[in-house]
Amino acid sequence: MVDVFTGTTVGQSVAIYDGIVVGFGDYKAKQIIELNGEFLLLGFIESHIHIESSCLAPQNFADAVIPHGTTTVIADPHEIANVLGIEGIDLMLEWGRATPIEFFFMLPSCVPSTSMETAGAKLEASDMLPFHDDPNILRIAEMMNYPGAIYGNQQVLEKLSMSGKGQRIDGHAPGLMGKKLSAYCIAGPRTDHECSTKGEALEKLARGMIVMIRKGSSAKNLQELIPLVNPSNERRYVFVSDDRSASDLVKSGHLDNSLRKAVKAGLDPLIAIRMVTINPAEAYDLRKKGAIAPGYKTDLVTVKDLVEFEVTKTWKSGEIIYNNNQTSDGNGIKTSLKVKSSTLPIPQVEISKFTLKPLSNKIKVINIVPDQIETKMSIEEVDISSGHVEIDSSRDILKLIVIERYTGKGNYSIGFVNGFGIENGAIASTVAHDSHNLIICGYNDLSMKVAANHLVKIGGGLVVVKDDTVVADLSLPVAGIMSYQNANDVAQSEKILNAAAKKLVLNCLSPS
Amino acid sequence: MVDVFTGTTVGQSVAIYDGIVVGFGDYKAKQIIELNGEFLLLGFIESHIHIESSCLAPQNFADAVIPHGTTTVIADPHEIANVLGIEGIDLMLEWGRATPIEFFFMLPSCVPSTSMETAGAKLEASDMLPFHDDPNILRIAEMMNYPGAIYGNQQVLEKLSMSGKGQRIDGHAPGLMGKKLSAYCIAGPRTDHECSTKGEALEKLARGMIVMIRKGSSAKNLQELIPLVNPSNERRYVFVSDDRSASDLVKSGHLDNSLRKAVKAGLDPLIAIRMVTINPAEAYDLRKKGAIAPGYKTDLVTVKDLVEFEVTKTWKSGEIIYNNNQTSDGNGIKTSLKVKSSTLPIPQVEISKFTLKPLSNKIKVINIVPDQIETKMSIEEVDISSGHVEIDSSRDILKLIVIERYTGKGNYSIGFVNGFGIENGAIASTVAHDSHNLIICGYNDLSMKVAANHLVKIGGGLVVVKDDTVVADLSLPVAGIMSYQNANDVAQSEKILNAAAKKLVLNCLSPS
Repeated sequence: MVDVFTGTTVGQSVAIYDGIVVGFGDYKAKQIIELNGEFLLLGFIESHIHIESSCLAPQNFADAVIPHGTTTVIADPHEIANVLGIEGIDLMLEWGRATPIEFFFMLPSCVPSTSMETAGAKLEASDMLPFHDDPNILRIAEMMNYPGAIYGNQQVLEKLSMSGKGQRIDGHAPGLMGKKLSAYCIAGPRTDHECSTKGEALEKLARGMIVMIRKGSSAKNLQELIPLVNPSNERRYVFVSDDRSASDLVKSGHLDNSLRKAVKAGLDPLIAIRMVTINPAEAYDLRKKGAIAPGYKTDLVTVKDLVEFEVTKTWKSGEIIYNNNQTSDGNGIKTSLKVKSSTLPIPQVEISKFTLKPLSNKIKVINIVPDQIETKMSIEEVDISSGHVEIDSSRDILKLIVIERYTGKGNYSIGFVNGFGIENGAIASTVAHDSHNLIICGYNDLSMKVAANHLVKIGGGLVVVKDDTVVADLSLPVAGIMSYQNANDVAQSEKILNAAAKKLVLNCLSPS
Repeated sequence: MVDVFTGTTVGQSVAIYDGIVVGFGDYKAKQIIELNGEFLLLGFIESHIHIESSCLAPQNFADAVIPHGTTTVIADPHEIANVLGIEGIDLMLEWGRATPIEFFFMLPSCVPSTSMETAGAKLEASDMLPFHDDPNILRIAEMMNYPGAIYGNQQVLEKLSMSGKGQRIDGHAPGLMGKKLSAYCIAGPRTDHECSTKGEALEKLARGMIVMIRKGSSAKNLQELIPLVNPSNERRYVFVSDDRSASDLVKSGHLDNSLRKAVKAGLDPLIAIRMVTINPAEAYDLRKKGAIAPGYKTDLVTVKDLVEFEVTKTWKSGEIIYNNNQTSDGNGIKTSLKVKSSTLPIPQVEISKFTLKPLSNKIKVINIVPDQIETKMSIEEVDISSGHVEIDSSRDILKLIVIERYTGKGNYSIGFVNGFGIENGAIASTVAHDSHNLIICGYNDLSMKVAANHLVKIGGGLVVVKDDTVVADLSLPVAGIMSYQNANDVAQSEKILNAAAKKLVLNCLSPS
């Protein structure tokens, strides 16, 4: 058994009764489970994730992470709240309670995330008050509007001041350092999962922030930050996912993967384990979680060793919910709760919507930087002889159109993008951070129209169109961002979508 | 500056505004304080003390500890609550708020402490509910009735279950280990300050308890336990006093003394400092205390070095409240609040009260063990030829009489004690743990009567009587257990009392 309080492994029996640890050593037992040299750990705690990033509803997300040892998830329902508002938060709480593991939620602090795009809801501090007494609400999710916090925007400060004694506020401040970081910390946030360099992480640590070392599907900071963790500061670090695709969950796992990578990068496994057990429990004041101790919940896992962290069994509240010797289809969506609101009230799309009258022959083009979230911008000369700004797929200058999906008016914006390299089709998605409108990129107006109308027809999701034909799609009926399917099925669809999308890229401009 | 998050010292300016830390580095300032090579630390946090043990009211206690760097005190008003009940807790809260430092209180869980003695109050869980919303109440003080917790006494469990989310319960379980310790932990306590051996401390640590390393005036466990503290477990330790006499405060200091002793015993000073700053702040979820970080309160101290920890200045909420270059008389008692209840309604004591008719010529005698709190018991033969059990000072068998001071009836009990060695007088006290009745020990009935009546006259305190004459006393008008005087005056009285008491001991039987 790993004892996270003393940082040691101990050979002893653990007595369990009624879902809690009651003692150690010899007790009379109705059932004895021999571990045969495997290690008993506390179930892993995910401190920060947007479940929506997996395109899985909480029940299917739970089924996907339980075999990887996760028993507690602290999630920010930021995406669904941007689409459905309060209804989205209610839905996640309800679905979370229907899973075999424990979901906590932070209240999304940035709905909408920007004033430059239409979102599905606007949540002020007062709108979220009814959630404050919910035992599964730990309070304020990542405050992304760090300029607002630093310069004293009143709505921002109202949200941050909702957090009473013992309640937590998460931060989000990529690259923020110096006096502005201090100002941000004063406003309340005490965690940050956006550190990408050692210097940034060390400064945030010194300012009192819990540094969340992220190993997500998009953003990955583990290799950079692991060398910082040492016995003098390890209590201030936790591992988080932030985002995690269904494909990555199926292929690489969840926090077990962070443990594996961290130990391979040289971290003491007993420190690594604390970063997904006692450290997050203390960070969020989860008093009956984080350790195997009397009165604590028996959320447990067994692993074969402390190198690969291959999970063999997972317990929640004393019940085995995963056993690698037994196959299971998972529990899947059990609740009858479905999304009530129509989230894609977009009128049928016509090609006329995609034409852009030029102001000059010079346009701004978004430049994708491979493997980065950030983009750059360039000015390009284009052909406007037809009276319209034309796509130039030979130079990889494609159209990028966002159609607003909330008001029913079908308002839209047209831009241009370099880096997709599409030469014979279009891709479209209703997963489009953070407002999740319908976004389409294509080499001509017809294929873009086909892609958009297909997503409207299926109620949201992802689609790949070749010429004027749909060749792959993934339906996301939950607010246009999540599926009712399980992780394997979603991962399989993602694989087919990716393969289909790559076929559109004849020259394969992207290094990946 | 000592950074407790990273466990390092950093050379940088700290910017302070309106009582909080606002940043680091260069800021425009109204006032600049140069530290000239001294170390800036967070003000020390005392996690567990009975202030009454110093015989000082909170205001004078504050004046005594501020020069030693203490800025936050978490106290258990167990003694005064046993005398005055709710009025005593109210008094400590009110007086605590009138000091320059910050006092938090835990709600006494054991009033009365025993059913074998009359106390001044009986507090059930429901009596303490009105305190629950007080921001200076951190919840349940040390549950000394560990058998009650282990075996499920209903009143005990009611008190322990008062503690809601984020609230804390202190423990008190000397020597408790094994299955009983696990049962005790399940009932709720998460700290223990009674560990006297390494094995006990390590087991309590592994069961999830914060181990409070005690350096009090009576009980001292620091030298024994310090070797246990290492980088893998240091976050689970704090330093506490539990009890601390005015004399020790004046002579040796407070938590600065624990730091000194710990570092001299080999502990890394940066770990020792955490044990009086961030560790207690995290243990009690004091979110704006424990570190020098943005948004944290500017409760600060400067020390000359990290070996002797000689405090040169103390700040509370940004104001200098102690400066070793300036003399100060302290603030003393400022509030007009005084004890309302008469706490010594004892009728005039007559000698007849002190005679004991024998059941046989064999009596039980309490044997004092030098330097220990625990006592032993022996059976002795005594002279009963007069029809009474006689004191035999030649064999150091003295009378020990407890007169109940709460009902006005003057009920009393008579016992015999070996180990005081008094040969020509009596000593008496209304500080008598935990019920604080009037206790008298003497070599004959007359001197004991004089001692008792003197304490009744002065409203409680300590007294030394030689033959039939009062030779030294300390008046304790606050519930018979605390003075309105400052620490120096109380310490001076204690010195005189100790010297006078020693003169009663002709053969000086005690090794001290």
